[in-house]
Amino acid sequence: MAIPLFTTISSYSTTTTTHRHRYLHHPIFSYNKLLCCASSSSPPVSSNFVGSEAGVCLSIGTHLIPHPDKVEKGGEDAFFVSSHGGGVIAVADGVSGWAEKDVNPALFSRELMTNASIFVQDQEVDYNPRNLIRKAHAATTSIGSATAVVAMLERNGTLKIANVGDCGLRVVRKGQIVYSTSPQEHYFDCPYQLSSEAIGQTFLDATVTTVELMEEDTIVVGSDGLFDNVFDREIVSVLSSCNNVSDAAKALANLAHNHSKDSSFDSPYSQEARTQGFDVPWWKKIMGMKLIGGKLDDVTVIVGQVKSSLSS
Amino acid sequence: MAIPLFTTISSYSTTTTTHRHRYLHHPIFSYNKLLCCASSSSPPVSSNFVGSEAGVCLSIGTHLIPHPDKVEKGGEDAFFVSSHGGGVIAVADGVSGWAEKDVNPALFSRELMTNASIFVQDQEVDYNPRNLIRKAHAATTSIGSATAVVAMLERNGTLKIANVGDCGLRVVRKGQIVYSTSPQEHYFDCPYQLSSEAIGQTFLDATVTTVELMEEDTIVVGSDGLFDNVFDREIVSVLSSCNNVSDAAKALANLAHNHSKDSSFDSPYSQEARTQGFDVPWWKKIMGMKLIGGKLDDVTVIVGQVKSSLSS
Repeated sequence: MAIPLFTTISSYSTTTTTHRHRYLHHPIFSYNKLLCCASSSSPPVSSNFVGSEAGVCLSIGTHLIPHPDKVEKGGEDAFFVSSHGGGVIAVADGVSGWAEKDVNPALFSRELMTNASIFVQDQEVDYNPRNLIRKAHAATTSIGSATAVVAMLERNGTLKIANVGDCGLRVVRKGQIVYSTSPQEHYFDCPYQLSSEAIGQTFLDATVTTVELMEEDTIVVGSDGLFDNVFDREIVSVLSSCNNVSDAAKALANLAHNHSKDSSFDSPYSQEARTQGFDVPWWKKIMGMKLIGGKLDDVTVIVGQVKSSLSS
Repeated sequence: MAIPLFTTISSYSTTTTTHRHRYLHHPIFSYNKLLCCASSSSPPVSSNFVGSEAGVCLSIGTHLIPHPDKVEKGGEDAFFVSSHGGGVIAVADGVSGWAEKDVNPALFSRELMTNASIFVQDQEVDYNPRNLIRKAHAATTSIGSATAVVAMLERNGTLKIANVGDCGLRVVRKGQIVYSTSPQEHYFDCPYQLSSEAIGQTFLDATVTTVELMEEDTIVVGSDGLFDNVFDREIVSVLSSCNNVSDAAKALANLAHNHSKDSSFDSPYSQEARTQGFDVPWWKKIMGMKLIGGKLDDVTVIVGQVKSSLSS
């Protein structure tokens, strides 16, 4: 099979050594043919292609910053990237509520992403992100649940997306967002989730869409830690100020992380909370106060830029 | 060729006889094989199918209310619906700025929709909404410009969408929006537009997406007169309170029309204006005032519900 050109630049939060260590040794990174990763200080990784089909592929940068209280354990987000086809990006966010049942919420999301990386080239998956969610979920034995988004780029520029819950994806073209996923939730702050329990959602609940991408389009994929703390207009602005996907992923993750800790920032999350009827008590309201602030969370950001790759 | 089941319920603003008359006699309604229409007082139109393929089709309701100052001429929005494939919905919104050049802004949008209805079964179009925009635009000789959205449902449930500018489309599933188009604009209130002039946009600028629909999903397609005046959460709420697509289209159009005339309503349009830096003068600001109100405009709403149609 032809091996497509695939350049990837990956970086991880360097807030703790533990954290970086965990990701570099996480099982999802043992699939070298599929997964490319490097520490934040590494130069961009460029792979020459051999007998490649003409078409497009992704240049990818990643950055993950755990919730401040979860730095030691690396947080509960997990992700993988692959060079299969024109490029595959997936993010899963472990539902933190499982901690109340003495279950580590990170186990399910990490195993789900590991399984997704194993099955990404599986014939039954047939380069269909909904099938990949089905296979990865069925193979996951950990207790827990997670939201997940999987995006698979075909060499002809078609980006296929399957989304369960409130991870998200944006496509930015010429300085504006031309495509955006819509979060699915049962009620405020309770997203659809793939689960070890029968009550959860499955691949059948995924919203499945495609977008025809153009060269130089930028994809931003992330956990809700990004989209709850950073407005779409800020995403566009940050992208326009960055020179490469690695810097862009890092800048967006840092912005989300900073906003998440800012109790005076009127975040997308606080605005949505007020829209849904949540607010400060009445006696604070009459003092002119309102529900405001960022939302502390793990933040995962993956930025992909569409590049052409000519056949050899 | 098999003729699919297609039920359609169409209604038009009954604010003036002139307006209703215009639409019933508009050229786009001369293609009886493609287009089904009825006045708002007519009962639902149900067509039995003969030798139909199994799959899904759309039950459709429509409602158009012109800008209050443009009632006599019927406004500048135009649309068409077709039973081809699983169903086709298209809306175009004539750019009103052409009136300053003594050009009737309705001519371009109406001719564009007429041409789209002519070419919808064209072999070269190949049931691809971007191709339909290309062919319809190329055949349009009127001076002017328009935003446009075209949605074509395949019998297998795949909804293919091409969008130029700030018409919009939402997919509502189980009480929440699972897909939303993103408007394209050069700057605030200046959308991408198909034009008679070389400076305008073309089919190449369309955002092209697909969504995998499920039975009972509801599609809401409209001009910006809907989305500038009605929040997504209101769309969901209105749909949940209506018994059929005809009532839903009418209720949404009426809500948009009422909000558009309400100078105290903090509309999506006024919120976006403030976000983009527009507001009342500083001396009004210090008195606690802000830019607020609906946006007067033509309002077109088309509501489609996905139904199964078994083969005979």
